[in-house]
Amino acid sequence: MLLEFSTFPIGSSESLSKDVSEIIRIIEDSGLPHRIHAMGTIVEGDWDELMELVKKCHMKLRERFSRVTTRIAIDDREGATGRIEGKIKSIEKHLGREIKK
Amino acid sequence: MLLEFSTFPIGSSESLSKDVSEIIRIIEDSGLPHRIHAMGTIVEGDWDELMELVKKCHMKLRERFSRVTTRIAIDDREGATGRIEGKIKSIEKHLGREIKK
Amino acid sequence: MLLEFSTFPIGSSESLSKDVSEIIRIIEDSGLPHRIHAMGTIVEGDWDELMELVKKCHMKLRERFSRVTTRIAIDDREGATGRIEGKIKSIEKHLGREIKK
Amino acid sequence: MLLEFSTFPIGSSESLSKDVSEIIRIIEDSGLPHRIHAMGTIVEGDWDELMELVKKCHMKLRERFSRVTTRIAIDDREGATGRIEGKIKSIEKHLGREIKK
Repeated sequence: MLLEFSTFPIGSSESLSKDVSEIIRIIEDSGLPHRIHAMGTIVEGDWDELMELVKKCHMKLRERFSRVTTRIAIDDREGATGRIEGKIKSIEKHLGREIKK
Repeated sequence: MLLEFSTFPIGSSESLSKDVSEIIRIIEDSGLPHRIHAMGTIVEGDWDELMELVKKCHMKLRERFSRVTTRIAIDDREGATGRIEGKIKSIEKHLGREIKK
Repeated sequence: MLLEFSTFPIGSSESLSKDVSEIIRIIEDSGLPHRIHAMGTIVEGDWDELMELVKKCHMKLRERFSRVTTRIAIDDREGATGRIEGKIKSIEKHLGREIKK
Repeated sequence: MLLEFSTFPIGSSESLSKDVSEIIRIIEDSGLPHRIHAMGTIVEGDWDELMELVKKCHMKLRERFSRVTTRIAIDDREGATGRIEGKIKSIEKHLGREIKK
């Protein structure tokens, strides 16, 4: 199962990179396959371990901020793993070349 | 905590209202305050009970379909409850009149 | 075409209902069928009129705030109209009763 | 302005990589800075050029499928450019090391 998420405080200072840094550490500590991009993070795992991770990140921000918003997208395909890179490779196969990623 | 979600199968028939109906029943059975609209459902509760509900709905579809996508948005504000109607009322107070909802 | 969106400033005060009120006025002035709920607004129209409306709302916030985030979901089904209420009615038909909305 | 989006047909075959391939070509032809990941594509530009691109991709699918869903997230920060890589670098600076991306 692939899960993409982003979480941030409402009503904090405009720059969020310090807060995001703390969240990156939590994601890395999860040991789950992941990829961080400019609009969120993609993680692969099963439902419970993914949601435990998102909860930890969300609650880390809620320790410091009284209002936090989190956005999640899930793509769950039976029997499919290694999809953080696999979905891109599948597209590259169709195109017959590499793409920018 | 407010959570909005929508879940649907990829690769099924185009019309999803039958599948959605089964999910509505699960949401109603949760006993949580909720509001169903044309693009998803809003539910109020704490993290664990909300995520258990979303998981049940997602997995209900996964019983029948091999690929399911779910989209979630969370607005978590300390000490705030009754917000499914409260957020709308707060806007109406600012406007000095009722809005279409 | 159904479009759901929400837009808010990052780094402003925690309470957003005043800002949201201004956006509600823009939505109402569009004349498009719409429904406001606790997590966003659903509007029905064609691509260009919907996106013009979202842009106006987003830019209204950008006049006052230097960072604004907007989230959009589109459900575009050929030949289908009246879907803000129609999708709910289709579910109610399957259930054989009314639902909370 | 950063925009992340994903678009796919409802009711098509489960595997979407061929359809996605066509969309990748449209994104590349836009000439806008972009990064493709497993859950969507991030593009940088101004509102009108970004939305023209998303419309082209969405409508490409609508040529072949009668129902298409598109999800968009926008992060618009005054005067900020080069953010597809810049946001990641800002986090790496806080962490004092590189992250997986």
